[in-house]
Amino acid sequence: MYSSKSLFTIFCILLLSISAQSYNRRAPGPCKEMIFYFHDIVYNGENYKNATSTIVGAPEWGNRTIMASPNNFGDLIVFDDPITIDNNLHSPPIGRAQGMYFYDQMDIFSSWLGFSCVFNNTDYKGSLNFAGHDPLMNKTRDISIIGGTGDFFMARGIATLSTDAFEGSVYFRLRVHVKLYECWKLL
Amino acid sequence: MYSSKSLFTIFCILLLSISAQSYNRRAPGPCKEMIFYFHDIVYNGENYKNATSTIVGAPEWGNRTIMASPNNFGDLIVFDDPITIDNNLHSPPIGRAQGMYFYDQMDIFSSWLGFSCVFNNTDYKGSLNFAGHDPLMNKTRDISIIGGTGDFFMARGIATLSTDAFEGSVYFRLRVHVKLYECWKLL
Amino acid sequence: MYSSKSLFTIFCILLLSISAQSYNRRAPGPCKEMIFYFHDIVYNGENYKNATSTIVGAPEWGNRTIMASPNNFGDLIVFDDPITIDNNLHSPPIGRAQGMYFYDQMDIFSSWLGFSCVFNNTDYKGSLNFAGHDPLMNKTRDISIIGGTGDFFMARGIATLSTDAFEGSVYFRLRVHVKLYECWKLL
Repeated sequence: MYSSKSLFTIFCILLLSISAQSYNRRAPGPCKEMIFYFHDIVYNGENYKNATSTIVGAPEWGNRTIMASPNNFGDLIVFDDPITIDNNLHSPPIGRAQGMYFYDQMDIFSSWLGFSCVFNNTDYKGSLNFAGHDPLMNKTRDISIIGGTGDFFMARGIATLSTDAFEGSVYFRLRVHVKLYECWKLL
Repeated sequence: MYSSKSLFTIFCILLLSISAQSYNRRAPGPCKEMIFYFHDIVYNGENYKNATSTIVGAPEWGNRTIMASPNNFGDLIVFDDPITIDNNLHSPPIGRAQGMYFYDQMDIFSSWLGFSCVFNNTDYKGSLNFAGHDPLMNKTRDISIIGGTGDFFMARGIATLSTDAFEGSVYFRLRVHVKLYECWKLL
Repeated sequence: MYSSKSLFTIFCILLLSISAQSYNRRAPGPCKEMIFYFHDIVYNGENYKNATSTIVGAPEWGNRTIMASPNNFGDLIVFDDPITIDNNLHSPPIGRAQGMYFYDQMDIFSSWLGFSCVFNNTDYKGSLNFAGHDPLMNKTRDISIIGGTGDFFMARGIATLSTDAFEGSVYFRLRVHVKLYECWKLL
């Protein structure tokens, strides 16, 4: 048997936990995970037919066919890369990674990414938008998933990136482990 | 009449739904909607006086007064566009759309946007920040609203874009339908 | 003593407040605050050794060693700036601010920022990602914190920027007051 007082107390505790959750949020784990790869072939003046990306901005001491020295600092690349489910460049693409990255550290290779993964297949239709710092010499590193559309409406999360392969400064392959911690549904 | 056991059960169910909501969130509809237009006039070497935007990065095969071929791939444009409430370029602006877009698809026109809509009028003071993929050949497409300031403090949502008009590669007008699904208030 | 009806009512009110909170959220205040400074020295053709940033994109009427006229419009700068706890450029850095900004207003100095603050010290390991409009002639202005990694996992918030000092178009120092309103913990 409960007095109105004790029920009111429970009510208040609940409202407080709701309100506190406003800014202190706990994630028991991802609400959605995906793993895929994308493949970047930078235009170097001779590979126009195969290239999937190109330098569009460079520092005064650089140009648009050779990465700037040291550490590519200041080179800005726009890309249109195929996404595959496995690490084979020639697998049928399940989507495209489209956006830009630029090298933003002077004493080591490191970049900043702003791009979208765009899916339009039987499993997924929609895009995920990414932004953040990518210290690419680290074996794994996390960037932010800042939003999404379609099947990924309003999504937020983290993507763990790892460089699965690279060949000089022309080809690299990125493994992307998407972990969404906010999954939304429009009622 | 309720036993403490049944009340405890209710309590637990509620806490679980709060915690689940942490990552599975339902939106009954937007908490705020706005529709406006913005107008982009790209500098082409001859329209300096009227231009609201200009190419600042381009691939090796492009330049800064003519869009690169094919499909403008690699062109990066910085813009400072008037926002109007209707689709008339000469209506009094209610704000400015400021930021960049770049073309990031090789086989079709498609771009990536990073920009803000800045309002400073009697209705709204503050900015909304946008990022995402804009497949501009689609009649409508969604991009992410990743944050906001002032009246749009901490806002998140989706903007549905449609190309309301375009003239060659010099003028286009974008209709923007803002739908916020997170509206915050600072207590 | 309560009837099942009245308890059911309480239950519904609570569920509604949870659901409403989905999009109307109240912040009683920041869940985390930090204040720091970062220092930007733009490459001007002569200061290669000290420079921490460089122009990588410019309009047709500009170049990569002198800011474009008027108002730097169209200049895109990549930076790798030291972060210090006080306003002394020569204090030991506690992290780095890495990313880009570009000037996006024709009639006044104003810019758009996309960057990360990267910390790797005893207090913090992780990065905060920023995006947004920076009307730098205003004494203070807010930009969005759109995500974070490591100790700042999934963070969101606002940063209040103020220009603490500037010398011509070569050096400026930014005071950054970080206010996070979403702090996440992975269980």
